[in-house]
Amino acid sequence: MEHLFAQLKKHSASEMYPYHMPGHKRHCFGELSQDSYQCDITEIEGFDNLHDATGILKVLQDQAAAMYGADESFYLVNGSTAGVLSAISSAVSEGGHILMSRNCHKSSYHAAYLRRLRVSYLYPSYIEGLPILDAITPKQVEEALEQLEDVEAVMIVSPTYEGRIADVEAISKIVHAKGIPLIVDEAHGSHLGFADGFSRNSCQCGADLVIHSVHKTLPALTQTALLHVCGALIDRDKLRRFLRIYQSSSPSYLLMGSIDNALHYVEKNRVHLFAEFRKNCHEMMEKLQDCKHLKFPIMDGGRQDIGKLVISVEGTNITGKQLYDLLRGKYHLELEMAAQQYCLAMFTVNDGKEAYERMTSALIEIDKELEYLKIDAEVGAEKADMERNILESEEVCKIFLSGDVKGKSFYEAWDSPRQEVLLMDAVGMRSAEFVNLYPPGIPILVPGERLTRKVCTQIKTAFECGLTVQGVSFVASSGSKPELYISVIDAE
Amino acid sequence: MEHLFAQLKKHSASEMYPYHMPGHKRHCFGELSQDSYQCDITEIEGFDNLHDATGILKVLQDQAAAMYGADESFYLVNGSTAGVLSAISSAVSEGGHILMSRNCHKSSYHAAYLRRLRVSYLYPSYIEGLPILDAITPKQVEEALEQLEDVEAVMIVSPTYEGRIADVEAISKIVHAKGIPLIVDEAHGSHLGFADGFSRNSCQCGADLVIHSVHKTLPALTQTALLHVCGALIDRDKLRRFLRIYQSSSPSYLLMGSIDNALHYVEKNRVHLFAEFRKNCHEMMEKLQDCKHLKFPIMDGGRQDIGKLVISVEGTNITGKQLYDLLRGKYHLELEMAAQQYCLAMFTVNDGKEAYERMTSALIEIDKELEYLKIDAEVGAEKADMERNILESEEVCKIFLSGDVKGKSFYEAWDSPRQEVLLMDAVGMRSAEFVNLYPPGIPILVPGERLTRKVCTQIKTAFECGLTVQGVSFVASSGSKPELYISVIDAE
Repeated sequence: MEHLFAQLKKHSASEMYPYHMPGHKRHCFGELSQDSYQCDITEIEGFDNLHDATGILKVLQDQAAAMYGADESFYLVNGSTAGVLSAISSAVSEGGHILMSRNCHKSSYHAAYLRRLRVSYLYPSYIEGLPILDAITPKQVEEALEQLEDVEAVMIVSPTYEGRIADVEAISKIVHAKGIPLIVDEAHGSHLGFADGFSRNSCQCGADLVIHSVHKTLPALTQTALLHVCGALIDRDKLRRFLRIYQSSSPSYLLMGSIDNALHYVEKNRVHLFAEFRKNCHEMMEKLQDCKHLKFPIMDGGRQDIGKLVISVEGTNITGKQLYDLLRGKYHLELEMAAQQYCLAMFTVNDGKEAYERMTSALIEIDKELEYLKIDAEVGAEKADMERNILESEEVCKIFLSGDVKGKSFYEAWDSPRQEVLLMDAVGMRSAEFVNLYPPGIPILVPGERLTRKVCTQIKTAFECGLTVQGVSFVASSGSKPELYISVIDAE
Repeated sequence: MEHLFAQLKKHSASEMYPYHMPGHKRHCFGELSQDSYQCDITEIEGFDNLHDATGILKVLQDQAAAMYGADESFYLVNGSTAGVLSAISSAVSEGGHILMSRNCHKSSYHAAYLRRLRVSYLYPSYIEGLPILDAITPKQVEEALEQLEDVEAVMIVSPTYEGRIADVEAISKIVHAKGIPLIVDEAHGSHLGFADGFSRNSCQCGADLVIHSVHKTLPALTQTALLHVCGALIDRDKLRRFLRIYQSSSPSYLLMGSIDNALHYVEKNRVHLFAEFRKNCHEMMEKLQDCKHLKFPIMDGGRQDIGKLVISVEGTNITGKQLYDLLRGKYHLELEMAAQQYCLAMFTVNDGKEAYERMTSALIEIDKELEYLKIDAEVGAEKADMERNILESEEVCKIFLSGDVKGKSFYEAWDSPRQEVLLMDAVGMRSAEFVNLYPPGIPILVPGERLTRKVCTQIKTAFECGLTVQGVSFVASSGSKPELYISVIDAE
């Protein structure tokens, strides 16, 4: 069977004139090549229907399932967001109880809101001695499940943003021992499970629902993703219903074609692609061992996705942001992210040798110059500790509570009337919104959670140190520090 | 300010190497031109963030608002679906009461399900003497609102699929007199409001929330849409929250660029484009008046979108499907849809003269041959009456009931345990699923509604006549008619 783009192009080259949607009629003036419009069709005869796939889309989805080791796979055109919303909505009954890691994507929280769930959290820990959060461990899951009742599903993120990979196989066993499903947000891992030197993917490790962002680590267009389902714990009809709810009824054949294109490419060139990828990463890491100041603390294979290069500036004279700006401004290398003490660069199968060479030489050159840069090192370290303290503080790491049971649940709080009050006046009140540092973006406060004096003080200090705090607003006041305001729900 | 595609292309031509998502790194082997990948970026510096637009996306959205006459407009990348879900979720409180037309898109029903709404319906009527449903009238809205209590919002579809346009201005006034907002699913009308000879759009007519599928009637890529908001009745923060919930956190710049591209094109060439569009349609209609058998019953301007050509085969020897197949197979003209008694062809600003000429000559030629085609005309008419009867039947047209108050509401029913039973054994039970004929796709039964003997009989007859019935299943039985099964919720 010909692949989707090929079939679409053939169709557009035919004599058939379109008196149907979309309105561009397969051509459009402007900057974008015509073939995007030519491939951009609607559900016409012979091209199946994503929401009830029986033809070419069924074949392609079955191919994806076979590639990843899933029982069934679904193409997604509204990102991993659609996969996460659908997975949670089908795995947990409305009003039910979910155990999820605190660093889950916002869409997990949104699903909990829409479906009125009770939420318990697993809190990731920092890797020993580093300001980088590790993946959730089997022990954490086991202990949480021993303490909690009525949990209907467990959800974790693996790999994490920095590429930390959980022991999904062990976690699956623990979760299944309770007769409930495991959902893995594997958005950053659609390249896993294809070759030696790379972790297996979560379908292969026993998870029940797995979400992949094909566009993050494979060469597909943005907004493309996959949802895989395995085993007998998930109601497939319910899953299909939610996929129809959360995605456009007119899914884009351009996006779907690019999923097919990317998977086909990977499958066809699997051995070579991943061998090259692995070789390039390893060679780069070997050369980077020459660095005296810049460190690469977590590139230990196994539990780490090698495509995520974490560059630590700890102990140097610069901050992560300064390294990011330097790489961008001087070397024209645009990294994924900068934190206080490190930067993150992403490599995929689509990077050629040039990508590795440019990064390697830039970092080696910068490392040499670090002796001479005169920037306050203490500031960076102080900021990293601050960030760490906030996240590890007792009030935040409440592993065994289902939110704060003495008050409003998350979804109720998010809908409650709210008011803005001065941060330090908010002690004892409940947050109306999410509050987090960015990075890492993990909530310090979820709507409904109570603001303690300690958390308020830490947020204030973080802000004053120049960290990015989301979820508070500030008002410049004449001659003194800006005043911080936070949104709280009405006192009961 | 340069438009989005131009800026994206410039950025991709720069020296900057991407060590960030998406994983294709701006190139990909395969059938699709490279510039799709080059324009496909993520939220990097200078390119704003759809979910918190303050830069280029804010400027573009403001331009869209100005073009359409809205207070505020939002680019959508998950189709009108995202707009409908967000509009209803923000206009109606959870568990609240919505009055919506029965022919609303499935996403309206999905929103009612997610938000646990009480739903009352407005039933469109047939145009006098035709098997085509008209738009909802001001009188229908007024009468419904007099009878119902606690309605929080009213939602209609205009234009309809066949291009019937409601008197939105009058309906807005009636709805606002109750202090509640009007939501218009104007998915088929993103080309309205720009020129004489075309209806004004619903923003200009006073609606509070208006959804446009830019890809349906303007030259943008599939999955692109707009949500417009006007006036003071809608909580904008709540609206923004739902837009973030229902759309990918990684929205596609390719899709967004195509919205900008299409709107820019329309704005720049407005006068000429619509004058040509109007002229071409009118000239075609003049020539088609020569037809003796094929009819064009609703092309009366004003209340009808001229871009929707409805070709009626009533009184001829062929069915709508046969006309559709003939146009496709012999003339290579692919129409939008075929019903029993008519076909639908869509024209947009992107059709050149060839489109009109090919359609005109094909129809005139077919019309001449209709004298000689020997196909049973009675079957077509019988089918049209059947369809009409089902929809108009008393049990279905319950304008003033909020669903069946003696039983389960829609959202509860859709989640209830269900079983398959023989259709004729289901009398007195409640449907677990949607049941409809296709076309038109309007629900005969919504989950929770009670199956009367009359409705069961009509569904059975429709099926036996070969109409497409969705929501029932059939099992072939040896030597006799297939047996129909329907999904019902457990008897209480």
